[in-house]
Amino acid sequence: MPASLMRLSSLFLRTLREDPADAELPGHRLLVRAGYVRRAAPGVYSWLPLGLKVLGKVEEIVREEMDAIGAQEVRFPALLPKEPYEATNRWVEYGDNLFRLTDRKGVEMLLGPTHEEMFTLTVKDLYSSYKDLPLALYQIQTKYRDEARPRAGLLRGREFIMKDSYSFDVSDEGLQKSYDAHRDAYVKIFDRLGLDYVVVQAMSGAMGGSASEEFLAISPVGEDTFVRGEDGYAANVEAVDLPVAPEVDASAVPALQEVDTPDTPTIETLVAVLNAEHPRHDGRPWTAADTLKNVVVMLVSPEGERVPLVVGLPGDRQVDTKRLEAQVAPMEVGEFAEADFARYPQLVKGYIGPRALGETVERDESGAVVSRSGIRYLLDPAVARGSAWATGADRPGVHVVNLVHGRDFEADGVIQAAEIRDGDPSPTGSGVLSTARGIEMGHIFQLGRKYAEALGLKVLDENGKLVTVTMGSYGIGVSRAVAAIAEANTDEAGLVWPRQVAPADVHIVATGKDEAVYVAAESLAKDLVAQGHSVIYDDRPKVSPGVKFKDAELIGVPTIVVVGKGLAEGKIEIKDRRSGERREVSADSAVDAILAEIAS
Amino acid sequence: MPASLMRLSSLFLRTLREDPADAELPGHRLLVRAGYVRRAAPGVYSWLPLGLKVLGKVEEIVREEMDAIGAQEVRFPALLPKEPYEATNRWVEYGDNLFRLTDRKGVEMLLGPTHEEMFTLTVKDLYSSYKDLPLALYQIQTKYRDEARPRAGLLRGREFIMKDSYSFDVSDEGLQKSYDAHRDAYVKIFDRLGLDYVVVQAMSGAMGGSASEEFLAISPVGEDTFVRGEDGYAANVEAVDLPVAPEVDASAVPALQEVDTPDTPTIETLVAVLNAEHPRHDGRPWTAADTLKNVVVMLVSPEGERVPLVVGLPGDRQVDTKRLEAQVAPMEVGEFAEADFARYPQLVKGYIGPRALGETVERDESGAVVSRSGIRYLLDPAVARGSAWATGADRPGVHVVNLVHGRDFEADGVIQAAEIRDGDPSPTGSGVLSTARGIEMGHIFQLGRKYAEALGLKVLDENGKLVTVTMGSYGIGVSRAVAAIAEANTDEAGLVWPRQVAPADVHIVATGKDEAVYVAAESLAKDLVAQGHSVIYDDRPKVSPGVKFKDAELIGVPTIVVVGKGLAEGKIEIKDRRSGERREVSADSAVDAILAEIAS
Repeated sequence: MPASLMRLSSLFLRTLREDPADAELPGHRLLVRAGYVRRAAPGVYSWLPLGLKVLGKVEEIVREEMDAIGAQEVRFPALLPKEPYEATNRWVEYGDNLFRLTDRKGVEMLLGPTHEEMFTLTVKDLYSSYKDLPLALYQIQTKYRDEARPRAGLLRGREFIMKDSYSFDVSDEGLQKSYDAHRDAYVKIFDRLGLDYVVVQAMSGAMGGSASEEFLAISPVGEDTFVRGEDGYAANVEAVDLPVAPEVDASAVPALQEVDTPDTPTIETLVAVLNAEHPRHDGRPWTAADTLKNVVVMLVSPEGERVPLVVGLPGDRQVDTKRLEAQVAPMEVGEFAEADFARYPQLVKGYIGPRALGETVERDESGAVVSRSGIRYLLDPAVARGSAWATGADRPGVHVVNLVHGRDFEADGVIQAAEIRDGDPSPTGSGVLSTARGIEMGHIFQLGRKYAEALGLKVLDENGKLVTVTMGSYGIGVSRAVAAIAEANTDEAGLVWPRQVAPADVHIVATGKDEAVYVAAESLAKDLVAQGHSVIYDDRPKVSPGVKFKDAELIGVPTIVVVGKGLAEGKIEIKDRRSGERREVSADSAVDAILAEIAS
Repeated sequence: MPASLMRLSSLFLRTLREDPADAELPGHRLLVRAGYVRRAAPGVYSWLPLGLKVLGKVEEIVREEMDAIGAQEVRFPALLPKEPYEATNRWVEYGDNLFRLTDRKGVEMLLGPTHEEMFTLTVKDLYSSYKDLPLALYQIQTKYRDEARPRAGLLRGREFIMKDSYSFDVSDEGLQKSYDAHRDAYVKIFDRLGLDYVVVQAMSGAMGGSASEEFLAISPVGEDTFVRGEDGYAANVEAVDLPVAPEVDASAVPALQEVDTPDTPTIETLVAVLNAEHPRHDGRPWTAADTLKNVVVMLVSPEGERVPLVVGLPGDRQVDTKRLEAQVAPMEVGEFAEADFARYPQLVKGYIGPRALGETVERDESGAVVSRSGIRYLLDPAVARGSAWATGADRPGVHVVNLVHGRDFEADGVIQAAEIRDGDPSPTGSGVLSTARGIEMGHIFQLGRKYAEALGLKVLDENGKLVTVTMGSYGIGVSRAVAAIAEANTDEAGLVWPRQVAPADVHIVATGKDEAVYVAAESLAKDLVAQGHSVIYDDRPKVSPGVKFKDAELIGVPTIVVVGKGLAEGKIEIKDRRSGERREVSADSAVDAILAEIAS
């Protein structure tokens, strides 16, 4: 970006003293207050001059590292034809997240959420031989997703800027190399952006494909939860695959027994009643972990089909909706409502037990249905075969104890949907997990041949045989990166930009009414611009020093230079925004001192 | 843009020998054949690597000149809320040209065609005093218009890139200054782009506002027609305001006379019959210019309301649909169909005369309608009061002669809708007009207070009084500029880019199989890149020299360097793409020779 001199007397900027109504997160509040961005509609933002500078710097870092791995920049449209997305079924699978529109001729189109289809078709058009590959293409482009709950400012917008790239290879080894090259580039990019991040195993979601990893900026405001093990294992909770607990010996467990449990609306009250009235056969007290909770939800397919599902898990755990959603995608998880209960009388709300569940409907000798609802029933991997549970008896006010998995009930399979907690054992078998939250900054996928197959992208191999190309898809949230950097770099006074993405290198504040101060400050600003640096210069004649200092802190440029009273004695102050350190330098050596600061 | 080395062995590019099916214009055909752009949907294009380079260079020139006049860059979203566009009525007035969509919550939104509303509202949010003004903001951003007939490739797309800027002033004089600054910047931009262009008076169309001028690239493939006078007058034909012909003395014209004119389906046959059977009263032969042609059209309002209109003009002229559309905007001009004729029996197809026309319905003494249809009737300014005409008599096979305007019929007004021809007198009163075609590259508007009034953008003036801000709006078709430059710079072999927008500075072709040639060519390429220049290097080992030369001509980089057989004698060839001139230089001095070429 060319060096620029931004005078606050004319810069299109008004800082706000009050927090904006729409801003939930500290970093986003400051981006709005300091005049970087402005909301235009829910999840849709305008970039004001300072914001556009930061965005441009992030884009440039991404572009340089993409170019460095030989990826070639292109730009595809945002307004796209429907047909390719129908061929891959994403037109349907994206559900309500896709912005669809109809043109004046009645032709259905969409606003692109990602561009796998378009890139695949274009490569198919241009290339035909293994000699043309490998190929990596990228674009930095505006994308659209009709989020159900646009929130958190730029972190989850409906219009946003992404870098998306796509690799094309003949062989699996080639894909692995392309994937690794992108992974390395991403490490460089997020290092350069100054983000504290972690690379975690991820689910591929609507993208399809096999292996995928996410780059998460570690942040308490992140929407993603990830786990780390003691052995380097790291994964998005959505991708954590806990081992099924080994079978236990149930020979000592007495026969199941139905017990009256009036007034036990919660697991805690149930446990209390059981301990008081129905001690465990092995003498150990009942805990919530001994109860089997059956959570019933309604899955909704992109086509609108509704299918109930019950998740069985220990009563001391909650279902993690994001983990569940990742397992059932592209189905969405909806509420199992009163009307649904009415349709399934086998389900007794509050007393649902495994004997009412499962796809295989049990029949008695006469062939009549006994009790099962036919609803799919999946168990948490912690529910070992042979383990005994207290759970609902499918009658109001009645529970059952000593119900043994494999002896007294079966399920349709296992599901990874329970919340993961700090201290849970790692799926690697070594040590325990710790959890933290992160912002998804990048996602890299080994797509494999899904898109190439759906759209017929084949090339001739060395033997003249047509082979299907294997692809990778790699995204970076560019506008989201601006937000993530902001969230990670604030203090009580405002934003604190890392130098490499700051909207300017130096913020010069001229104070007082002495004309000489403004002459010196202007000259200093011009000298720095001439050296290739961008400068914000607060030349406002009638604004108090206090307001100017507050604005400088709020805007958050790394080096603040104050030209004021000290100038009479030949002194200028340099302040480091992050550390707060101030020092005086002689006016004569100010340019050199500031240049040294910038270079440090 | 950073210097880059693009090797044809890996560049994402396939040149086509055949013309693509979708390309109507020579420049666009070459942009597709040479791998610059590719159609994704009607009126929607993808930019491949070379195209994106050219686009980036055009953007950079526009950005530099906007920055130079103190305009500040911002970026607004493309996905916009409906309400501001309702406040200015453009939600309706844009009609089918607006892409509208509905989000998952049923909220109507639009894809921005231009951003007057959003800028006005943002300035209103941030600014409140005359001291904040003048202000000029701009963006280079993707825009959407659902064109009825997307055609001509990038010249008229449905998704396209525009630079749009907006000026905000307190006074009319301020607006004039902002307008002049933009006008000057536009002159610099189009000069730098190497376009042959003309600045013409224009209609403001859907934008509203008073004065406006267009920058048209002179081109036979342009969609706009403009006129130039001998005294410097220049205008889009839509904006030409011809003077009403002065009244003539009708005292010698006999009373109107109805004449049988069977078998006169055309004006030519009518003139022949009249000359044979009904000589003019003044002895001069009848010509087509003595007949009054009444053209009936159906105007359709953005709300869908249909209103008929008849344009009366001399029979030797055609209605110019674009001139007519400019006059009736935001109404669109539709066909007056058979069903419409059935609804208006007063209109006898082929024999429509002025006596059946006009909004004021004539009644006889009893109050019964005589003959008029009540249809609005507007006359070409050439139809002077007192002039006598041959025209339809509103009965099949019958015309009327000696029908005098002002004596025998009246109209509802004048309309500027007739085609303008070379040699027509200039509206300035001095000399004649010549016509030519152009591509609208830029349009600058003095909007005035229309948007500020509709959206309440007021500031306090020097006296503490609230005054409405006055605005200008200034557009440049950035993606269209790429197309216009291409259309103006082709020859039979391919594109011939002006250096300042070429995708590279030099195209190096290495020929043959001699390894030394490729070593020398690669070294030359790297030397040039190290000097800050972008190079396309044709390093393809198994491609014939003929194909390489053809590709180089097709791609159209200004300097082509051939490293081949001559290298054995220490010679390298430099060819100027535009002139075709070739010269040999010694391999040792090649870098300097090429640098001199680039600098020339």
